[in-house]
Amino acid sequence: MRIAQVPPLYEAVPPRLYGGTERVVAHLTDALVELGHDVTLFASGEAQTRARLVVVRDQAIRLDPAPLKSDLAAHLAMLLEVRDRADDFDIIHFHTDMLQFGLFADIAEKTLTTLHGRLDMKDLPNLYRRYPQFGLVSISDSQRKPLPDANWVGTVLHGVHTDSYVQRPDNAEGYLAFLGRISPEKGPDRAIAIARAAGRRLKIAAKIDQADRAYFHEVVEPLLADPMVEFIGEIGDRDKGRFLGGADALIFPIDWPEPFGLVMIEAMAAGAPVIAYDRGSVREVIEDGLTGFIVNSEQEAADAVSRLGSLSRRAIRDRFDLRFSATAMARRYQSLYAQRVEMRGADLGLVRSA
Amino acid sequence: MRIAQVPPLYEAVPPRLYGGTERVVAHLTDALVELGHDVTLFASGEAQTRARLVVVRDQAIRLDPAPLKSDLAAHLAMLLEVRDRADDFDIIHFHTDMLQFGLFADIAEKTLTTLHGRLDMKDLPNLYRRYPQFGLVSISDSQRKPLPDANWVGTVLHGVHTDSYVQRPDNAEGYLAFLGRISPEKGPDRAIAIARAAGRRLKIAAKIDQADRAYFHEVVEPLLADPMVEFIGEIGDRDKGRFLGGADALIFPIDWPEPFGLVMIEAMAAGAPVIAYDRGSVREVIEDGLTGFIVNSEQEAADAVSRLGSLSRRAIRDRFDLRFSATAMARRYQSLYAQRVEMRGADLGLVRSA
Repeated sequence: MRIAQVPPLYEAVPPRLYGGTERVVAHLTDALVELGHDVTLFASGEAQTRARLVVVRDQAIRLDPAPLKSDLAAHLAMLLEVRDRADDFDIIHFHTDMLQFGLFADIAEKTLTTLHGRLDMKDLPNLYRRYPQFGLVSISDSQRKPLPDANWVGTVLHGVHTDSYVQRPDNAEGYLAFLGRISPEKGPDRAIAIARAAGRRLKIAAKIDQADRAYFHEVVEPLLADPMVEFIGEIGDRDKGRFLGGADALIFPIDWPEPFGLVMIEAMAAGAPVIAYDRGSVREVIEDGLTGFIVNSEQEAADAVSRLGSLSRRAIRDRFDLRFSATAMARRYQSLYAQRVEMRGADLGLVRSA
Repeated sequence: MRIAQVPPLYEAVPPRLYGGTERVVAHLTDALVELGHDVTLFASGEAQTRARLVVVRDQAIRLDPAPLKSDLAAHLAMLLEVRDRADDFDIIHFHTDMLQFGLFADIAEKTLTTLHGRLDMKDLPNLYRRYPQFGLVSISDSQRKPLPDANWVGTVLHGVHTDSYVQRPDNAEGYLAFLGRISPEKGPDRAIAIARAAGRRLKIAAKIDQADRAYFHEVVEPLLADPMVEFIGEIGDRDKGRFLGGADALIFPIDWPEPFGLVMIEAMAAGAPVIAYDRGSVREVIEDGLTGFIVNSEQEAADAVSRLGSLSRRAIRDRFDLRFSATAMARRYQSLYAQRVEMRGADLGLVRSA
């Protein structure tokens, strides 16, 4: 199949450091190539891919030091480039929210759009109602709840390639890990409280967005004075495997409807169990008592730390391989692509009689 | 002529408080109605207009207390509403930057797009090169400089209706005024330094965006301890007329390529001279020695304060009436609309032989 992948331009594909969407697209793209498809990736110049690369910006936006940039212009220019080549593809897979709707309204049936973000926002129902022709993919069933009537064609849980994540089943080093973004909904302050209650060391590897600087300075920074807590900043894939593989558990104390939570499967790839709050996608990703523990409070989380010995790091990795490899994800998307192509063929009267 | 006006949804039309673009569109829309046109305004529910109103959101985005909103979804839904009704109009006038390009690419010739922002951004040249079919209007010649090759069809300086601004030619109350937004490029700290050097009181009426809170707390707030400086927060149109009419001068010490600077003509409408830094549009708006003084430093600005007695507040208002009334602006747009309609007629072979 001739497939176009169209991720956002905020981070490199894959990201050098933080970044969920572009990481998933990078791994999906390579896995589709491995499955034998003819894949074209539209991305910024740093992209590393086994697919054909069409460079649409010199570098990814977030870490570009240019003083004045326009996210919107960069993305719209990319979309026009995709539009110009639309005839080259059987399916165009967008990861850019709704930005492509205007330009692709007349060929919506040859597109698929994965929504990567939270959907409980005031303006979304009206928009998606107005564009019913675009087939949408959710990254968890939970993510769909605010938009039950949108044109959902499937849920595809994320997967990642395992090359970058070292499995270290017997080698935990006696610390708990927090990995991600410093923000109230991700709960680094709760992670610190949990580690304290459990009497364990905590290492925090996270980026701090401009918008979250005040929260960091006012809430998190004072807690870092505790010698049991170590803040190591934003880390990349290579360090991530070691960081997670060495952890007794990943602490994931979210307070928002997490649409997926890529870090949970990254931890599983490294053999680390996950102690996660029961919000959003968590029940679809973590198998309670097998790959981690699902909890509802700091106390429950601290109690779960004392039960970590009952989990097998090797079994956790096995569950990852079965459910969350990039290939597993690519196969699920492959079947959605095939459905779209077949539907279109049927519309055009082109489907071969079986 | 059947005209659609499509402003952004960030502020009410006109704005309750701060907001340049939506204010200009409000005044343009009413002035076009007064000129006899059939005008439709797409806007949020609070809009006050003499045109036909199509409500596309319950309220404007910025002051909407909803915790989670999507600017992009709100605007794209509005644009689709406009697209559905495109046949009802001879001309569709967008004030939404480039967001409409995808959806209106096939009928670009019946649209006009006024760009209201700064254009010296990395991603813009590539985007505008890719959409040459959209006719663009600049709000000053200076604004065009970073994009000399875009498809410019005219420059239309802003205008405002004068009903809202009291002319108080003989009634200055002995203070200097700063009005707008607290941000480094608008220069409230420089305004304070200028007032101090000139030995005058300064009143600051300004909004503070989330992004500028750190700048406010770190740079501006400490300067407010001076008893000669008064910070009165964000104000609306009614207060603005009094605020500017009572000022000896508006201080406009910008440090960026200001595309227009609406507050300069609001000051002129109230009879107040403007002391402005020589950046961006300033030379196109202020007539040095007649409606204000154009300066290049805090010292020059302070010296200009001592020369304010040489300016006539009545003459300033006269220049405003001649150059910057809403009607003057509407007539300039009217002639651009007519050109577009005529060109399209010629393309379609529909122009009557003269």
